[in-house]
Amino acid sequence: MIEPRTLKGFRDHLPAQALAREKILDTTRRVYRSYGFAPIDTPALEYLEILTGKGSEETDKQLYRFTDHGGREVGMRFDLTVPFARFCAQHIGILGTPFKRYHMATVWRGENTQRGRYREFMQCDFDTIGTTSPVADLEMVLVVHDLLTAIGIERFTIRINDRRVLTGILEQIGLAERSTNVLRALDKLGKATATMVAADLEAQGVSSAASAVLLGMAELTGPPAQVLAALETLVGATQIGQIGVAALRALVDGVQQAGVANNRVVIDPSIARGLDYYTGIVLECFLDDLPALGSICSGGRYDNLAGLYTKQSLPGVGASLGIDRLLAGLEELGRMDRVETPAELFLVYFDESHLADYVRIAAALRAAGMAVEFFPEARRVGQQLKVAAKKGFRLAIVIGSDEFSAGTAQLKNIATQASTTIDWHGSVPVLVDAIHSQLEAIRAGH
Amino acid sequence: MIEPRTLKGFRDHLPAQALAREKILDTTRRVYRSYGFAPIDTPALEYLEILTGKGSEETDKQLYRFTDHGGREVGMRFDLTVPFARFCAQHIGILGTPFKRYHMATVWRGENTQRGRYREFMQCDFDTIGTTSPVADLEMVLVVHDLLTAIGIERFTIRINDRRVLTGILEQIGLAERSTNVLRALDKLGKATATMVAADLEAQGVSSAASAVLLGMAELTGPPAQVLAALETLVGATQIGQIGVAALRALVDGVQQAGVANNRVVIDPSIARGLDYYTGIVLECFLDDLPALGSICSGGRYDNLAGLYTKQSLPGVGASLGIDRLLAGLEELGRMDRVETPAELFLVYFDESHLADYVRIAAALRAAGMAVEFFPEARRVGQQLKVAAKKGFRLAIVIGSDEFSAGTAQLKNIATQASTTIDWHGSVPVLVDAIHSQLEAIRAGH
Repeated sequence: MIEPRTLKGFRDHLPAQALAREKILDTTRRVYRSYGFAPIDTPALEYLEILTGKGSEETDKQLYRFTDHGGREVGMRFDLTVPFARFCAQHIGILGTPFKRYHMATVWRGENTQRGRYREFMQCDFDTIGTTSPVADLEMVLVVHDLLTAIGIERFTIRINDRRVLTGILEQIGLAERSTNVLRALDKLGKATATMVAADLEAQGVSSAASAVLLGMAELTGPPAQVLAALETLVGATQIGQIGVAALRALVDGVQQAGVANNRVVIDPSIARGLDYYTGIVLECFLDDLPALGSICSGGRYDNLAGLYTKQSLPGVGASLGIDRLLAGLEELGRMDRVETPAELFLVYFDESHLADYVRIAAALRAAGMAVEFFPEARRVGQQLKVAAKKGFRLAIVIGSDEFSAGTAQLKNIATQASTTIDWHGSVPVLVDAIHSQLEAIRAGH
Repeated sequence: MIEPRTLKGFRDHLPAQALAREKILDTTRRVYRSYGFAPIDTPALEYLEILTGKGSEETDKQLYRFTDHGGREVGMRFDLTVPFARFCAQHIGILGTPFKRYHMATVWRGENTQRGRYREFMQCDFDTIGTTSPVADLEMVLVVHDLLTAIGIERFTIRINDRRVLTGILEQIGLAERSTNVLRALDKLGKATATMVAADLEAQGVSSAASAVLLGMAELTGPPAQVLAALETLVGATQIGQIGVAALRALVDGVQQAGVANNRVVIDPSIARGLDYYTGIVLECFLDDLPALGSICSGGRYDNLAGLYTKQSLPGVGASLGIDRLLAGLEELGRMDRVETPAELFLVYFDESHLADYVRIAAALRAAGMAVEFFPEARRVGQQLKVAAKKGFRLAIVIGSDEFSAGTAQLKNIATQASTTIDWHGSVPVLVDAIHSQLEAIRAGH
């Protein structure tokens, strides 16, 4: 006999988990689509040369790679950005620009599992490419906002910044040449104290005056108008800095025009993200009640998506939802349903001689758009109701021989244990209507 | 520069394809759920010992296998049945039986691509395990029926049989010991003529009388009651044969009680499927207009799912939808929408000075549940409308400076080119209502 087990860093999704994940994926898909983002898919396996050297040294090391049956060197995708770049280089001619796509798919990384990371996880990316329009930047922020709202999260903050503001400030204080190291030092804020970061900057030869400017900038908080005014001063006359401030201002205005609540989007000048990749607006999103979870949705604007595969320049903007991190967060906040069934109705199989009637009733309920589990074995009613309760059904339908004779049915609200008797006089449509009404009442919380 | 290309046998899904696929996956999910099947997921990678020797010699050869970073021998799943068997052996204790699950996921096989096969494709399986109840058999047939109906296919036939009927007949004509070879010969019917199969059977020492019985059986057609009567005669007094005929009869009755049209489910005694695996009811489903496509959904009842991984006996019944084959069929029948966008509304970006107004309008349309693409660049209107037409939007909203001043808007039905002017007097809710009405009319085909 072979021991049934999964590989280290991999896991099965049981119904409760899989249902929670499908619900969020479904919401994500609906929100992405409401902005006109269209789905695409790419293969799990790519030529190795497409994947290596495109992420970090770390992702190269973590790559699942092998030689296939035809002697080709192949690898499993470690993110959705690299395959998207390859995809665009190949197809953008027929797709045309601007092109808006989403991609929700599994990726694999041979991570160190001791850090609580999984080696197989899902990413949900959306991007608008082939345009530098500020409308695309605005939509990135709005999609993230609509998504978290649709998932039912009330307390979250979208933090935005613009890489050009940082560049402008560095130029203004004479550190333009050293931006990579300076930004890397600043990026540690949050994990390290301001004093530690200041020491780090000083070690790199940054003057204490310049260091004070940078730390002051990173700590700017308050209403967007106030932060924008402070940034405007800091970027001084630098052209790139002014462009960045203007872009942030336009974004803040757009977000307000779209009706987003005032405190949901804040300017956070400490956000740098991806030292080379991002070149304009950058975004991170945190759950207010779980800041330590880290950003659950991150993205920004970049100058050129697919430069390694095509000469066509493809600027773009987009973000990625970390669905596994978000699910972990919802779990921690006690916000996950623990139901194990997608159906709300449980049809108790009471009396085998009435099998034909149960079949008819179940079919009518499904035809009316309700999901119903017809328990396949005529076990004791109490035992069946226990299963219904354990799995999280909402309403059980009990019709035994006596009820069939009398033309009645017992409807049991599983959560409250309340039972109602209804008269359906042997008319299935009447029964279906009565069940539908009770289900609606339960859904509405009555 | 690296050449952007996909591996042989692998492919990208562009929006039109990906949208068609998501639509069918969505319908499939909804139908599976309406019967109480719950989703699960398992890793793409498994320990090699879990996978090898579990399919056929062919699947063993086609397996993508390698050694991972930790020196483990691993393989990519080639179907969803083997991982499900492993999953059940591991988790059935806490899940309890009967257990109903669906699993929609990608599988990989290093197939010979010259036969037009892909090396990466999706399967959509559903199974009820841990019960021998005929209700579970019936639901398998009903799910397949509801699924194809929900997808919008009118002309399809579900062919059912019972392996026990075949066993009974073989017993009756003294060929019980040779069932594997005989069934393999019969399985060629459809590809080979009856004469060729008869010659094959004779070569195996089957008497011409027995051969005539088998070929007569395989060619039985007609209304289920008639076929059942003929099978009843053929199985004679064999117990297993009589059980099989009774099971088929109960299934036919149940299907009728559930309201399925008479000609949708037929008994086809030539179907054997999986020579060893299936032990009861078997099912195949064909599109009437494309019989050569082969079965698009197949399944049956088996005695023991997970015998290689656990001592617990898990009988079950289930089927698998071949979504890629179905999509190919719909394509061939000209039944595929060629839209490249999930949104129906296209908001023309006419006048940059009104950006804030467009943002407000787009947000209001989305809040009202409509999907709208706000074109990100204020290009010429004609050019934008061309994009809208190419991508398959339904309705374009054109509001320029004149319209903003007059409080009007042009709504263009993309398919008919018909244009309507509406008065919204600067009230976004009025505009949203008018757009919603027009969209509903277009959806209804007016």
